[in-house]
Amino acid sequence: MADGPQMAKILRKTDTISDHTVNRLSPYLRCFTRLREEGVKTVSSHRLAGLFQLNSAQIRKDLDCFGEFGVRGVGYYVEDLIDHITGILGLDQHFRIAIFGAGHLGQALADHGRFNRRGFTVSVLFDSSPRKIDQKTRKGIPIVDVARCEEVLDRDRITIAVLAVPGEAAQALADRLAAAGIKAILNFTPVNLRLPPAVKLNTVDLTVEMENLAFFLSHPDARG
Amino acid sequence: MADGPQMAKILRKTDTISDHTVNRLSPYLRCFTRLREEGVKTVSSHRLAGLFQLNSAQIRKDLDCFGEFGVRGVGYYVEDLIDHITGILGLDQHFRIAIFGAGHLGQALADHGRFNRRGFTVSVLFDSSPRKIDQKTRKGIPIVDVARCEEVLDRDRITIAVLAVPGEAAQALADRLAAAGIKAILNFTPVNLRLPPAVKLNTVDLTVEMENLAFFLSHPDARG
Repeated sequence: MADGPQMAKILRKTDTISDHTVNRLSPYLRCFTRLREEGVKTVSSHRLAGLFQLNSAQIRKDLDCFGEFGVRGVGYYVEDLIDHITGILGLDQHFRIAIFGAGHLGQALADHGRFNRRGFTVSVLFDSSPRKIDQKTRKGIPIVDVARCEEVLDRDRITIAVLAVPGEAAQALADRLAAAGIKAILNFTPVNLRLPPAVKLNTVDLTVEMENLAFFLSHPDARG
Repeated sequence: MADGPQMAKILRKTDTISDHTVNRLSPYLRCFTRLREEGVKTVSSHRLAGLFQLNSAQIRKDLDCFGEFGVRGVGYYVEDLIDHITGILGLDQHFRIAIFGAGHLGQALADHGRFNRRGFTVSVLFDSSPRKIDQKTRKGIPIVDVARCEEVLDRDRITIAVLAVPGEAAQALADRLAAAGIKAILNFTPVNLRLPPAVKLNTVDLTVEMENLAFFLSHPDARG
């Protein structure tokens, strides 16, 4: 973790950090963790550029957003970078996730390794179907009546909601979650949700992903 | 579909179109389709701006990338826009999808409504586990031995591959798919895949999505 002055600088700098930069921190962290496992102590921005297929200036710019981690002639200290990025991403805390919708996708996500790794745990699924309520996923995560969601979100100190419900139900649910104090939502529905500015919304739109591929298959010259 | 000169213009213009613009076409199409269902014939960029929470200049700029669809004082003809965007995205063709990895996520994706809608069909899942080979998903999509993938990709005229395999298997599989002539891959693994430029790669990285939310929960002022 960054200490006082360092963290003050990080916090000041984060005011202007783009989603793109934040989204590159996760792969950086994954890569540095792997380098550490391989016994690597320092890494140059040039080598990182090769690993990420980004240019080294972009990498220096990304990492410099969060403080001065690089040492001229040495590169970056892997261990320091891991600690810093972990702190920046908030992964020294623990985030509890609730998944809404216990259909096949919701259950697959609930049991997925990447929703249950350092920093994250899926605590509960919510559904409205009597057939599903009080059942468990294959890995044992309980499915609870969505009617009880405010009580359970509070009890389990949930901070992240994942929406895997039918599109028709998404906006009303999102409103309810915002009212219940949820500040981070990952939306798998195809609905353009309206939320208060204090709620951070990320959307994984499978239709957009597929139609984007369709576009590039139809216009091979447009590949960008 | 756009006819000759119109399509020539579209194709010329697509050379410079960003992924962001392409990715906005899918929600536009969804919205116009809903407007048509509601009996709406024309729509102004101002009204579209309200529907999409974008500014009207951005919307005009997006739609103008693909030809001159707007009529001053009238707005956009909903039916024309649907036809044009359908053509631009290539959705007047049909794309067959193969999913690699018949785990919970792969099977949930295979049976998911949004991978089986206008323009798209999931034809097959591939896996290497003898327990899964020759089984079917809940909706009846066959699971085939990945050893046979080149033959089946060709037989079924698959153009899109979805990777839901363990990360360790992803790069070797991607190389194999590129060699087999697959030109579009949707990657659900956390691996930074290296592919020839002719292959369009989209990645849905669940770790990135979660860590992005963690970042914003940890730095509420950085919301952007």
